[in-house]
Amino acid sequence: MSFQIAGKTAGSIMILEAACMSTGLLMSIIYGEDLRPFLYSIGILLLLGLPLYKIGKRSKDKYSVKGGFITVGLTWLVLSAFGALPFLFDGHFGNYINCFFEAVSGFTTTGSTVLSDIEPLSKGMLWWRSFTHFIGGMGVLVLVNAILPTAKDKSHHLLKAEIPGPTSDKLVPKLSDTSKILYGMYIALTLIMVLCLLLSGIGLYDALNISVATAGTGGFAVKNLSIAGYYNIAAEYIISIFMFLFSINFALYFLMLTGKVKQALKSEELHFFLGLVFAAILVITIKITNIYGLADAFRYALFTVASVVSTTGFSNIDYNNWPALCEVVIIILMLCGACAGSTGGGVKSARLVILFKTLRQEVAQYIHPRAVNVVRYDGKVLQEKTVNSVLRFFFIYTVIVFSALLLVSLDGFDFRTNFSAVMTCINNVGPGFGAVGPAENFSALSGLSKIVLSFSMLIGRLEIYPIIILFTPSAWRKD
Amino acid sequence: MSFQIAGKTAGSIMILEAACMSTGLLMSIIYGEDLRPFLYSIGILLLLGLPLYKIGKRSKDKYSVKGGFITVGLTWLVLSAFGALPFLFDGHFGNYINCFFEAVSGFTTTGSTVLSDIEPLSKGMLWWRSFTHFIGGMGVLVLVNAILPTAKDKSHHLLKAEIPGPTSDKLVPKLSDTSKILYGMYIALTLIMVLCLLLSGIGLYDALNISVATAGTGGFAVKNLSIAGYYNIAAEYIISIFMFLFSINFALYFLMLTGKVKQALKSEELHFFLGLVFAAILVITIKITNIYGLADAFRYALFTVASVVSTTGFSNIDYNNWPALCEVVIIILMLCGACAGSTGGGVKSARLVILFKTLRQEVAQYIHPRAVNVVRYDGKVLQEKTVNSVLRFFFIYTVIVFSALLLVSLDGFDFRTNFSAVMTCINNVGPGFGAVGPAENFSALSGLSKIVLSFSMLIGRLEIYPIIILFTPSAWRKD
Repeated sequence: MSFQIAGKTAGSIMILEAACMSTGLLMSIIYGEDLRPFLYSIGILLLLGLPLYKIGKRSKDKYSVKGGFITVGLTWLVLSAFGALPFLFDGHFGNYINCFFEAVSGFTTTGSTVLSDIEPLSKGMLWWRSFTHFIGGMGVLVLVNAILPTAKDKSHHLLKAEIPGPTSDKLVPKLSDTSKILYGMYIALTLIMVLCLLLSGIGLYDALNISVATAGTGGFAVKNLSIAGYYNIAAEYIISIFMFLFSINFALYFLMLTGKVKQALKSEELHFFLGLVFAAILVITIKITNIYGLADAFRYALFTVASVVSTTGFSNIDYNNWPALCEVVIIILMLCGACAGSTGGGVKSARLVILFKTLRQEVAQYIHPRAVNVVRYDGKVLQEKTVNSVLRFFFIYTVIVFSALLLVSLDGFDFRTNFSAVMTCINNVGPGFGAVGPAENFSALSGLSKIVLSFSMLIGRLEIYPIIILFTPSAWRKD
Repeated sequence: MSFQIAGKTAGSIMILEAACMSTGLLMSIIYGEDLRPFLYSIGILLLLGLPLYKIGKRSKDKYSVKGGFITVGLTWLVLSAFGALPFLFDGHFGNYINCFFEAVSGFTTTGSTVLSDIEPLSKGMLWWRSFTHFIGGMGVLVLVNAILPTAKDKSHHLLKAEIPGPTSDKLVPKLSDTSKILYGMYIALTLIMVLCLLLSGIGLYDALNISVATAGTGGFAVKNLSIAGYYNIAAEYIISIFMFLFSINFALYFLMLTGKVKQALKSEELHFFLGLVFAAILVITIKITNIYGLADAFRYALFTVASVVSTTGFSNIDYNNWPALCEVVIIILMLCGACAGSTGGGVKSARLVILFKTLRQEVAQYIHPRAVNVVRYDGKVLQEKTVNSVLRFFFIYTVIVFSALLLVSLDGFDFRTNFSAVMTCINNVGPGFGAVGPAENFSALSGLSKIVLSFSMLIGRLEIYPIIILFTPSAWRKD
């Protein structure tokens, strides 16, 4: 790994972050708030970022696979470390670990918060929280790729590490064009959502916040009661629909836009995802109808399933005391997560489709040992290599869940709280159960747990390897 | 699959079960108890078993892989279904589902019970409960192989499906000799344990019961307080040591007996297993010292770790309210389980060693993409095929855990109870947490949950495939 190229990337990320942060500054100017938290943060970013970028600019290194992973891991760490500054200068968040947790939770689009009362925050600060979801949702390196002309020659590895899923096909031959198309669709869908929310009676500031947080499948809200605080049923349905829309592979939207609607609708991942969603809504609605009546039960089930499977984490009801079956369904949805190539987290439907197909093939192989069984995915024969890497991903994911669970358990909370805290963080959902339920927050956890969960969020968002490789000493040695 | 050969195996299993059951009859004769439960059960077994065996005897079919799996699955189902009869005729166990659960729990060496008060049971019945562990521990088909001369030509597949672990090497070239050696060591170790317990002051009947239950890593006790009911610290230490001994690969004992001590001690699985055990004892002792004082804390930690990692399930303390960290450690031990080729359950240390090595190789591959990384296990290069089948095993295992969890959650118990019930059953441990904790039992669960957990136990004991293939319709079609 070349430190020069890492420095250059870090520098450009910091300059970009300063630009993003100025939208928070703008909000604070509009609402006549204290500007210092943003001014200080932006100042620090530029003071460090500009020299780093200049020093690294002369580098002509190409990205190796390893270098790509390190760059991605480092970028997200830098992004979070400096994204936490406005929170630190604001003063409502307490110590730096809390601020770092909040920033990581924002960029990784998790949406878990350390605040029990968010309403006293300034409009600028609330916007910055929501906007971190938007930046992290589609990916910051995808953004760099889309806007920097020099980025066009960079390797495919970077996007591969940042765009979730077992396979990542370029939409168009040119990488920077792919990035531009992805961001174009992302922004367009967000603007449509803002319009819909305005029509439902939500104010412009709140509509903007909710939309950017939904787009990134984040979950930070501007009200303590999350979406339940608006008492607006139309808005709840709109948000439910958009949470689903943002958890579908963006490549399918591109196919539809280019007239290949049939091909898009044939996606096996989409079928699996929709099947999962319908089954979950059905089971939860049946189980909670006796509590709320059918209409409300359906609305709560729809919203909760959309929120959890998309890994957004908004809530329109406190589902902490729903029947045990609903709890297991919710945990399974957390684990499954959204589709590959979307802004959502989790293991991803595409991986599960591949795993289930492999499983079926395994059984078939035992029954007919001499038959040749190939696993097909979307009509194409799945490479053994892809299957194996998905299987390994699943195991390493489990190892990380249990390791984090061990460390978080040191706090002495109950098993349900600890397990759901880890699951909600690694899958970038937001709320868990028990002491970290939808009506609760992560403030009571120890500093160690917050650090462990911060890294779980990063590991979940970047799909494990960039963070692990970043902390593997041999990866930093010269080849 | 040939129905004839399946019938022959089922027949011989039923005759063998009748013979095993007569030990319970003998106990009841010695203690002057009601003989009818055993007489009726043995009568039914012989009445059905003898004709089945005769009909099938002419069959000259060879076992195919598929046929082997079906035979194993069927055998264990038959064994459990008829092994439940004495419980049914006894009357203390309630309906047949309870009796089936108890029998499956016995044969699979789980040790979860549906009884809240076991002490009123007759000596014969208590012995039969304990003895099912002994039969199931080393495997019933291994026994058939050891004692039936006709079995020598049967395929390796049968033992492969019944002896746990990712690889199964024969100890000696001839299969029936391997089976004889395995059973010889098994019986010898059990007898040594009986002697040790007698020396510690435990009565003969209890020593026999505890020893056969420990040998199979089962966990059914003859006192309501399990081992805590003896108030005998020496016995607790003896049982702890033997629980560890029975969870180590029997092939290592064979190596030691044949003078290859060095080779046995080099086993990578053994190192992993011992490391896990030491770490768990250390962590738990530290966490509970302030409750019990160091001496008792160590004794409880040692016994609990031995009991859980060997998947025996005896208890010398109710660990239900230990700190959350201990709970996670216990759940991780349940999942890991014993060594391959032992009588213990769980995923097995051998599989975990292979998985962790694969994981390290995966990271190394990303860092040095052009380097050739081979995974070695005990000095030999691991075949890609073995690694893949272990990875698949791990995924299918997780799918079964979550499927069972969904069904068990229908009962409305809390998440901790449901999750630990599934984990303790699929890993053949015994007690879980909450409503199925060490001082509780499985009686309060619904019939559906008991059936789901019974099949989880069978799936765990037979390492998944025999039960799945048994219920796959296409496996029953003629090739």
